[in-house]
Amino acid sequence: MTTDLKGKHILRTDTLTDQELELILTTAARLEGEREGGRRLENMAGQVMAAMFFEPSTRTRLSFEAAMHRLGGDVITIADPKTSSAAKGESLADAVKVVEGYADVIVMRHPRKGSAAEAAEAVSVPVINGGDGAGQHPTQALLDVYTIQKEKGTLDGLTVALAGDLKNGRTVHSLVYLLARFDIDLIFVSPDQLKMPGHITEDLLSQGVRVTHTEDLAAAMRQSDVVYMTRIQKERFAQPEEYERVKGAYVLDMAMIEQATEGITIMHPLPRVNEIKEEVDGYAGAAYFRQAHNGVPVRMALLALVAGRD
Amino acid sequence: MTTDLKGKHILRTDTLTDQELELILTTAARLEGEREGGRRLENMAGQVMAAMFFEPSTRTRLSFEAAMHRLGGDVITIADPKTSSAAKGESLADAVKVVEGYADVIVMRHPRKGSAAEAAEAVSVPVINGGDGAGQHPTQALLDVYTIQKEKGTLDGLTVALAGDLKNGRTVHSLVYLLARFDIDLIFVSPDQLKMPGHITEDLLSQGVRVTHTEDLAAAMRQSDVVYMTRIQKERFAQPEEYERVKGAYVLDMAMIEQATEGITIMHPLPRVNEIKEEVDGYAGAAYFRQAHNGVPVRMALLALVAGRD
Amino acid sequence: MTTDLKGKHILRTDTLTDQELELILTTAARLEGEREGGRRLENMAGQVMAAMFFEPSTRTRLSFEAAMHRLGGDVITIADPKTSSAAKGESLADAVKVVEGYADVIVMRHPRKGSAAEAAEAVSVPVINGGDGAGQHPTQALLDVYTIQKEKGTLDGLTVALAGDLKNGRTVHSLVYLLARFDIDLIFVSPDQLKMPGHITEDLLSQGVRVTHTEDLAAAMRQSDVVYMTRIQKERFAQPEEYERVKGAYVLDMAMIEQATEGITIMHPLPRVNEIKEEVDGYAGAAYFRQAHNGVPVRMALLALVAGRD
Repeated sequence: MTTDLKGKHILRTDTLTDQELELILTTAARLEGEREGGRRLENMAGQVMAAMFFEPSTRTRLSFEAAMHRLGGDVITIADPKTSSAAKGESLADAVKVVEGYADVIVMRHPRKGSAAEAAEAVSVPVINGGDGAGQHPTQALLDVYTIQKEKGTLDGLTVALAGDLKNGRTVHSLVYLLARFDIDLIFVSPDQLKMPGHITEDLLSQGVRVTHTEDLAAAMRQSDVVYMTRIQKERFAQPEEYERVKGAYVLDMAMIEQATEGITIMHPLPRVNEIKEEVDGYAGAAYFRQAHNGVPVRMALLALVAGRD
Repeated sequence: MTTDLKGKHILRTDTLTDQELELILTTAARLEGEREGGRRLENMAGQVMAAMFFEPSTRTRLSFEAAMHRLGGDVITIADPKTSSAAKGESLADAVKVVEGYADVIVMRHPRKGSAAEAAEAVSVPVINGGDGAGQHPTQALLDVYTIQKEKGTLDGLTVALAGDLKNGRTVHSLVYLLARFDIDLIFVSPDQLKMPGHITEDLLSQGVRVTHTEDLAAAMRQSDVVYMTRIQKERFAQPEEYERVKGAYVLDMAMIEQATEGITIMHPLPRVNEIKEEVDGYAGAAYFRQAHNGVPVRMALLALVAGRD
Repeated sequence: MTTDLKGKHILRTDTLTDQELELILTTAARLEGEREGGRRLENMAGQVMAAMFFEPSTRTRLSFEAAMHRLGGDVITIADPKTSSAAKGESLADAVKVVEGYADVIVMRHPRKGSAAEAAEAVSVPVINGGDGAGQHPTQALLDVYTIQKEKGTLDGLTVALAGDLKNGRTVHSLVYLLARFDIDLIFVSPDQLKMPGHITEDLLSQGVRVTHTEDLAAAMRQSDVVYMTRIQKERFAQPEEYERVKGAYVLDMAMIEQATEGITIMHPLPRVNEIKEEVDGYAGAAYFRQAHNGVPVRMALLALVAGRD
């Protein structure tokens, strides 16, 4: 039986089968190739994508819109939640039930966990979750995996360090579950206050993933093929001096790279503030901008697959 | 002589001839059929629609933008009045005279009554009124009529109840004048404070429409083929307790439907807050989401007709 | 060797060669002709333009978006700086490095002088400057020159008066340098407080441009083929009464035109507040709305040229 995502919602990564994940990654790679040289694709010609952003996320929105346009499709956008009819007291279900009459696929971002599933329940067009608060951000995790595969040629056999705020980072939480499907070693690098939640580590261990913890970024980088940096936000700390003490240890620079595994790949979901020094941008393994760009083919793949137009 | 809307403005419904109304409704139905199955239309290919929204109305804007895209056309949008040059003291006439050089058709929403006519006067591209304050909202009235015709097969011989705030509802005022062209009985259902203005009722009577008033929604529904609900807004009442007393009587639920004319069609311009219970959504005659969706073919028809590309 | 702008940035006008300027003007005229009658162009089909507006400018944004659509291309837009990731502390270089993965050409507006060059430095797709604060606004100057050429048939041999606030007007500063390339006489008309900066006048004189100053608009118009009006803003004056005294002298009306050179062309970058009386709009030489409309073919030319798809 062939795997197929036609008409399906993309709400989270943990419910994707391995075959579906494989299909998404190969479709992204194929569409990226077909697009090369500015060639015009027509997969979504005559189709409309609604970008419903109930909280702002310029990057995710632009990436989805670019993906839809690169497939020849059109876009309608709600980018300002203040002017939407939610402000008049309308339920989310009603809002998406109206929009399903305007569009062939809905991409939604919403501050409330579970809202994407709620929207999907209400409508008959496919819904793609562009981030639902403390919930999931499946397309970010997918583009991260796509990036590692593209940079390294494979995911199996790699050691991946995740560094920074592992406690509050939705991105990192979605990503580790996806990485757990591969033969991967994980190193969690964070100050004690920002450790990966215990229940996630336990989930990973129970799935046979090898996990180690450390506070020492440089040490972790000496053992890793990939390091995934995240931002440490000041507001997460009770004491400002605590933040000041910690943040310096999580600034990746060229000196660290020179001591690390040769060819180590540097990733970051962006925007960065000062977690990675600008001097690193010229390093061949600095993959964070390519990672952001990979959002386009991955989202092209998702749009084309749920529309049955891949 | 054939009826034709090419190059014409759509500012209000009362100046449309019966032939023009008929043309809009049949063109909407035809385009809706042609679009079926996601087929790509090219009527407006190479054309640009400017959506100038001087006050926010996400629903109307998205519906027009989707309509333009479904016809193969492109869209430029002003959705945030604060950043437009009106904020610098520019006149409305100047603003639209600039935009007529950017676009082949202008859709405008503005808080001031008469503004759409003022804009139309200033430019040589067609202007479609997307609502001008206390003035008209012709495309809403047209999609309402299109919906009744589609749900019931005809408009003639029907009894239509309009319920809720009939005093302040622009939507309802535009609609009754359009319904008056057909062989229709109207029932106005509202609390005394929110009755249909006397001059409108008189206009209707003078056109031979049969009109009755009642405060009893359930009773009206027992005699109606269609009930059109509108929202009762708290801020319309001098006394909060007055509002509390009244609002409960205008909440449509399944118990009311079970007592009503069999197959009664339920309409609402949306967004609803609590005028129609969610339990009604599963009822076959609950037409309000289909009504919202009908905005797309009706607006496709208007865009194609004024561009002479139907 | 043929002149070519493929892959180049458009950041300022003074670095354009005469051949490049000529190429832009002739390409704009050609594309304007090809578009006539609503014909669909395909030059930018399959291409995406990113409009990154870090400060609002509805007119410039819509004009660029319309230009891209008229060439068959698609658009992604950041129009609200408050919701962009710059608000999270991201550098401009990082922001554009991400967006270059989404788009084939970037149009940028930013309040900081030099920001367009900074962006261009960071990316490998062409950047078009849509205004960088007190810096340049090259596309406005180019459409102004295009307008004069179209209205008058040539630029050589003309006398052009520039009137109003010549001290603070970025538009006027960019324009005079471009006009200096032609055989043109300039008359600067302004109150003493708002005179053209001395270094600009000196630059022009050293390039052999004939320049005169006056405070008398009516007198200048008797000697000019073109008068370019700009707005005098109240906030530029220390004393309100000073503003009141001055502003009346710079209101262009039909009486002035009747005393001026026959067929004088009236230009204004818009929006106007009251610098030109509405009665002038009906005068055949009132070119300011045509001037705004000329933004579309000029920006079409720039987009097509930098993409190598002219």
